[in-house]
Amino acid sequence: MTEENFKKNVAIIGLGLLGASFGMALRGGPYHRLGWNRRPEVNQWALDNDIVDEAHDRVEDVIAKADITILCLPIPMIKEYIVKYASCWRPGSVVTDIGSVKQVIVELGEKYLEPRGVFFVGSHPMAGTEKSGFEAAFPTLYDNAEAFVTRTDTTDPAAFNAVAGLWTCIGVKVVEIKPADHDMLVAHTSHMLHVVASALARAVLDCPDADEKQMRFSGCATGFRDTSRIASSSPRMWREIIENNQDAALSAIASFEKRLHRLRKIIENGEFDEFEQEFAQGKELRDSWVAYKAAKNRKPVK
Amino acid sequence: MTEENFKKNVAIIGLGLLGASFGMALRGGPYHRLGWNRRPEVNQWALDNDIVDEAHDRVEDVIAKADITILCLPIPMIKEYIVKYASCWRPGSVVTDIGSVKQVIVELGEKYLEPRGVFFVGSHPMAGTEKSGFEAAFPTLYDNAEAFVTRTDTTDPAAFNAVAGLWTCIGVKVVEIKPADHDMLVAHTSHMLHVVASALARAVLDCPDADEKQMRFSGCATGFRDTSRIASSSPRMWREIIENNQDAALSAIASFEKRLHRLRKIIENGEFDEFEQEFAQGKELRDSWVAYKAAKNRKPVK
Repeated sequence: MTEENFKKNVAIIGLGLLGASFGMALRGGPYHRLGWNRRPEVNQWALDNDIVDEAHDRVEDVIAKADITILCLPIPMIKEYIVKYASCWRPGSVVTDIGSVKQVIVELGEKYLEPRGVFFVGSHPMAGTEKSGFEAAFPTLYDNAEAFVTRTDTTDPAAFNAVAGLWTCIGVKVVEIKPADHDMLVAHTSHMLHVVASALARAVLDCPDADEKQMRFSGCATGFRDTSRIASSSPRMWREIIENNQDAALSAIASFEKRLHRLRKIIENGEFDEFEQEFAQGKELRDSWVAYKAAKNRKPVK
Repeated sequence: MTEENFKKNVAIIGLGLLGASFGMALRGGPYHRLGWNRRPEVNQWALDNDIVDEAHDRVEDVIAKADITILCLPIPMIKEYIVKYASCWRPGSVVTDIGSVKQVIVELGEKYLEPRGVFFVGSHPMAGTEKSGFEAAFPTLYDNAEAFVTRTDTTDPAAFNAVAGLWTCIGVKVVEIKPADHDMLVAHTSHMLHVVASALARAVLDCPDADEKQMRFSGCATGFRDTSRIASSSPRMWREIIENNQDAALSAIASFEKRLHRLRKIIENGEFDEFEQEFAQGKELRDSWVAYKAAKNRKPVK
């Protein structure tokens, strides 16, 4: 108990896949874990399963005690809570989030919290599955992950370090980035992929003819399983992400469409030597990415 | 040895990923396994590792002894061997293949072999990985797989059953199909996906700016890993497949482009309720496919 009193209070707001997994990853660590979830039964579940050390029914009661707060909520709620509860955080405390977009969130954080002496630094851990909700949480979700942590012209260095430290203490590597650069980057590395996977699932499986549809279901194997996996993600969540990163997502989709258009033209023209070269360049890039990740994680990716 | 003499002779021509894995899967089964590979050291490896029971350096010597032959070769070699060695098969014997396209191959098989009393029935097992070569072979490659087996107006029923039996004896489910229907189907369930994955790998990782490229490599996670996995497939093999299924591949690409175009327009117009509905339909289809495969395999797909 004495040792506990010296620990910093971290408030985990929202105990879904990312929030509950974060609580699990922090077990035995240097933080006293405060938790809050909209549904009281999830708070109880989190207490019963050593996901948080303390929980309260009112979010205000949790954030008022926090040295550092991590908003593990859907993007619209992150935006809403920053505004709605701005006066509840203690001056000097630090707030971060796990939202998949950063520019709109960091702008709100700086606008509403910093005048009150509360520091806001955005985070985006590159971790997740196509599932959601506390039932899907597991303690190794963040293993080998990286987290983007934002720095702007007005970011407080100590606050940045506090947020970076929260990630590094669960083994997540921190990558510093400007909010706008982050949004353009993840539009390419993630957001566009979800739009493509969704279009793929429809193009492959959505047949008006019932017999043909049955054959398509039967004919799909591991290639379809993997290329389309993220089409099984939450429609609500992906709507919120794309809605809050519209221009960058469109830019990334355009760059993909350009590449695909080129491959289609090559096939139409019967230029198969060219096709083989283009495919080889894609393979070389993807293989070098696999090697890069394997070297970084010191274990094979796939 | 006596029992061995009653076994049918199966000739596995080509001991790469599919051929060698096929030999492994047939271990202890009701066939005497003859093998041939272009490289003699692979024949020896196959003998040493119980992948075949007998191997010869000359392909003619192997197919002359075969009751049933499976051509586990690249598509251009399947086409070449059917023509070149047509006179070497014994009348009454049955020939099949593992090529990813069927119409061009079945046409050649019927044209060159059937006048000599040799039966040709096309096969396409839905199994494989992004790797190739005998080193990548493993005995469970065909587990839970399905194989398309072709039937045309002239297919001999007994020959069809012989080929179907070869697959069912290693636990592969046989799906009967016409060659042209097969090619249009796999264009959608497989070939188009490889073109999309290759375009994705380029769109995500191919940056002229070195710093930006480094950030892209770092920023990619499991979503990219899975959507792009098959971009690491063999460029030569995929050139051969697309080259031999050009029209159907273009048709499948067009149906994907149509779906993607629609999603892009929805995002451009800011119609995010519509986006969420479209994404939900893709998720529902993909989830129902996962459930279908899980029920069929009696184990979870993912």
